[in-house]
Amino acid sequence: MINKGSLYVVSAPSGCGKGTILSEILKRNKNLFYSVSATTRQPREGEIDGVDYYFLSPEEFKTEIDNEGMLEYAQFCGNYYGTPKKKVIEKLEQGIDVVLEIETKGAMKIKKALRDAILIFILPPSVSELRRRLIKRGTEKQAVIDNRIKEAAEEINRARNYDYIMINDELDKAIEDFDAILKASKLTSRNNIKMIEEVLKNA
Amino acid sequence: MINKGSLYVVSAPSGCGKGTILSEILKRNKNLFYSVSATTRQPREGEIDGVDYYFLSPEEFKTEIDNEGMLEYAQFCGNYYGTPKKKVIEKLEQGIDVVLEIETKGAMKIKKALRDAILIFILPPSVSELRRRLIKRGTEKQAVIDNRIKEAAEEINRARNYDYIMINDELDKAIEDFDAILKASKLTSRNNIKMIEEVLKNA
Repeated sequence: MINKGSLYVVSAPSGCGKGTILSEILKRNKNLFYSVSATTRQPREGEIDGVDYYFLSPEEFKTEIDNEGMLEYAQFCGNYYGTPKKKVIEKLEQGIDVVLEIETKGAMKIKKALRDAILIFILPPSVSELRRRLIKRGTEKQAVIDNRIKEAAEEINRARNYDYIMINDELDKAIEDFDAILKASKLTSRNNIKMIEEVLKNA
Repeated sequence: MINKGSLYVVSAPSGCGKGTILSEILKRNKNLFYSVSATTRQPREGEIDGVDYYFLSPEEFKTEIDNEGMLEYAQFCGNYYGTPKKKVIEKLEQGIDVVLEIETKGAMKIKKALRDAILIFILPPSVSELRRRLIKRGTEKQAVIDNRIKEAAEEINRARNYDYIMINDELDKAIEDFDAILKASKLTSRNNIKMIEEVLKNA
């Protein structure tokens, strides 16, 4: 009998390099399944359905909600965002580890639904550094940046409810830290009671 | 203000390669402090006081017990074995991580005294492999080996009370696993609430 897979839920304020870390982690851990979110917002240029998001119509999304097809969902700026349940549960049952990126309120909902989920929060080195990174991108106006910073502070405050908190100060170190969390979380005794029984066979 | 150090308590049945793993881990992690146990048994040839054990007289050991100088202690075959408290607490207060090797009952006592202690159990690949390793050593008689196996099975049964359980099947992998546990245990949110406050400064 195989163990069930682990579910890793990753949150980070915008500008913390979460995407860069995750894409490197997925390259290194070929067996890790990345769960793509669903949304009703319009695809942006270059975004691919099923890769960046599952792009659903509002009707399709509502049907999913009615059929309890979403692990969690929320509305932002008039659009729905959510985590499709079926594939996540399927992979976990097959013993495959799943990682998903999600904001903090959604992460809390997932933890409620799946108690064994492992919540990982990625911090920026400081909020002022985060502000510098957002300004450097040069794509956002001052008011938008101020709002992002306010949101980031709220998200960071919720990090205390996570299982792990890591800082993305140096990218290489952050990747090592993330990898260590993946590895160590497989070694918790909770995950290895069966291993004891196996080892004791023919004692 | 610095964080307190972490206390790692390592247990493994005899023949699991715990010593080899630990000496490699101590080489890699120069800041990890190895806590030397105290005993009233006679030093064996080549054993050095303060390196292998602190060799105490029964009177000295009893005085330590009376003065609450031992984190835990136990008697085996008429000799006392124990963990001197002072240095462990000192190092932890200085923010230095401490590792100690101890059998399972002592480990349970430590966990009771210091709730934040991180308990790591090293399993052999199987009990039959453990038996093979003990026979291969060639230093023990059959009856002694049988008794060792019985003790090992009892210890392994207590592994379910540990925080982490790892197998020493391949040495390199076991060292990587141990290292990941050290790294990840520093990233638990319990250890990093202060980090959140730091990051939020000047938000």
